[in-house]
Amino acid sequence: MISPKKYHKTVKIPPNGFKSINEFFNHVFKDKEMIWMGQNTNHLNDHNEIKEAMIEFIKSNEYCKYPPPEGFPELQELILKDLGLKNGFESLITAGGTESLYLTMHSYIELGDSIITSDPGYLIIENFARRFGAKVTSVHIYNKECSYKLTPKLARDNIDNKTKIISLIDPLNPLGSSYTKDEIKEFAEIAEEKDLYLLHDVTYRDFAKKHYLAAKYAPERTLTIYSFSKICGMAGLRIGGIITVPEMMEPLKAVIINDLGTNALSQIGAIKALKTKKKWIKRVRERTYKNQKIIKKAVDEVEGTFIPVYPSNANMMAIDIYDTGVSPDDLTEYLLKRKIFVRQGSYTSRFYGNRYIRLSFSIPKEQVKIFAENFIDLMGFLRS
Amino acid sequence: MISPKKYHKTVKIPPNGFKSINEFFNHVFKDKEMIWMGQNTNHLNDHNEIKEAMIEFIKSNEYCKYPPPEGFPELQELILKDLGLKNGFESLITAGGTESLYLTMHSYIELGDSIITSDPGYLIIENFARRFGAKVTSVHIYNKECSYKLTPKLARDNIDNKTKIISLIDPLNPLGSSYTKDEIKEFAEIAEEKDLYLLHDVTYRDFAKKHYLAAKYAPERTLTIYSFSKICGMAGLRIGGIITVPEMMEPLKAVIINDLGTNALSQIGAIKALKTKKKWIKRVRERTYKNQKIIKKAVDEVEGTFIPVYPSNANMMAIDIYDTGVSPDDLTEYLLKRKIFVRQGSYTSRFYGNRYIRLSFSIPKEQVKIFAENFIDLMGFLRS
Repeated sequence: MISPKKYHKTVKIPPNGFKSINEFFNHVFKDKEMIWMGQNTNHLNDHNEIKEAMIEFIKSNEYCKYPPPEGFPELQELILKDLGLKNGFESLITAGGTESLYLTMHSYIELGDSIITSDPGYLIIENFARRFGAKVTSVHIYNKECSYKLTPKLARDNIDNKTKIISLIDPLNPLGSSYTKDEIKEFAEIAEEKDLYLLHDVTYRDFAKKHYLAAKYAPERTLTIYSFSKICGMAGLRIGGIITVPEMMEPLKAVIINDLGTNALSQIGAIKALKTKKKWIKRVRERTYKNQKIIKKAVDEVEGTFIPVYPSNANMMAIDIYDTGVSPDDLTEYLLKRKIFVRQGSYTSRFYGNRYIRLSFSIPKEQVKIFAENFIDLMGFLRS
Repeated sequence: MISPKKYHKTVKIPPNGFKSINEFFNHVFKDKEMIWMGQNTNHLNDHNEIKEAMIEFIKSNEYCKYPPPEGFPELQELILKDLGLKNGFESLITAGGTESLYLTMHSYIELGDSIITSDPGYLIIENFARRFGAKVTSVHIYNKECSYKLTPKLARDNIDNKTKIISLIDPLNPLGSSYTKDEIKEFAEIAEEKDLYLLHDVTYRDFAKKHYLAAKYAPERTLTIYSFSKICGMAGLRIGGIITVPEMMEPLKAVIINDLGTNALSQIGAIKALKTKKKWIKRVRERTYKNQKIIKKAVDEVEGTFIPVYPSNANMMAIDIYDTGVSPDDLTEYLLKRKIFVRQGSYTSRFYGNRYIRLSFSIPKEQVKIFAENFIDLMGFLRS
């Protein structure tokens, strides 16, 4: 085992005025006036049926028992149905998509393997891969030529004989770029041809106009990561899963951490969320989509700023402010003072963090308008 | 990294009539008539204030946000207060004590280290230790001479120059044995003298007549594992933590899995549980303690059976049935047919699994009586 001291030295500096990152997040959580655009969470879920199911479960006292270790079969089935992957696939329930990503790295990475990711991208995947001894090839994708995504061509250019996994976050956190059917098919071919696996993180899938599953084209080479945090608005309940074929599932089950199961109450909520999804998904998608337009209008008014991927296929986007000379760190800090929580680029990029802020917009319209006004105002102020 | 295929080959055979372990547990969970004595869960928690706090949180919609990564500071503080470890200690919130055990092994075990555990004992700890390359020295403790526990002397006899951790489950799952103050002090001295760490799992602490924390005598060498599953009756909510000094906490934070935090709703319940503990703990402890007597009486009536540790200091005990010739597997299966869920010895022992069943008894008195009657009846039947 690699000593933790050796492989983990990400320096996380808490924002001004906070003793630690943990205290900062506690502050943001507890402040009910805070406008949450900083963690891609979805605040549009007034789904009373989901709440009622959870409340009933609490009253029943059933939470005093351990749920089955791999998840309630009903939930496992519903996830497969939601993805349209009924035949030949299995799902494993975990404490959020994050635990699924971790288990994937633990099972599929051996010392000396390499993994291809993108920068910008979701850095925790790289962190997990390194813990298990992987070399990370982080492909720079912050440019128009590749449409701000890890294209099949870029993946090919970076594959070597150690490459074990290509990580596709689709739609991509933080940019909102996503793949066409042809691109997904090409990734499936690459996986076959080069004898490697696709990690297909579809956390933001339901916000996309169109979305295609790699699992349909390369079922025996794809690990699909699923989450209830975003479209279902259940981030704080920490529930997600991995979907793959039985043979690929075996090594994942062998490194399971919580052999006493994932939160039973969250599973009850998740079951109800999938059962009622048809009733609420249109409203959530449409509000989120319309909110983008409000932001776009504000960005268009500020010279030197632009949205790299517009419209975004996720519930978040980046706003590039590099040409204005304003630093994303400063903008983030000033917005926070006005109770608007967004993220500086360095949270999702090692190389382009000085160019953009990331913000999510599955929040009420009124809050998006407040952001838009303050963005225009603060950019004027900070630039001068 | 050791390949999962190489290190994990625990064959788990589902009980008769079930396709998988997961289906079996789902069945047991869903059957509302089932008497739960199989997972040390606590069914005595009619704590309305805890439920109300969780229901209010659900209604508030706050669960759509991520909690702080290391836990709500209020909960972190309350745990330290509950243990009387206010000064110089920190706590980290995790998805159950299980995740805490996992993080401990990940941080503190390097390839070639060895860890001392006991048999019988909680086998998942050994499984985790092996994943990170440890040699496990499982000391046989199923005998009167050592009072059915890993004594300081037994630990000393088994320490070698590779020993990194001594694992103390206290009170011990499955037997209910626990340590005196002098014994805990001696373990603290051993840790100092031999330059090693104590893993002190105090999950069942609140059921014990008396209990002593190794952290008080060897603060800089002890990792205390804490759980809300048992005394607070929150097993299905998967919440627990690790307590240690800041320097020992650093490597744990470096291998954190869920950097988006532990279930916010469970934390809200846990906060209320600790705040109201004084109101309900006496009732839970006393009912659990009295239930032991009902079981003892039944065991005394069946020749050839005995309770190795009586009274147990936990909410579970073992019943030894070896001399009757009845196998624990058969007894467990027949009890299950009568909707009584207990565990065969092999779940907590590699060497003595053919001698005992394990059962927990923090359940209503009427259910314990049903077990007692059926135990007498079935032992008569199976013996003949």
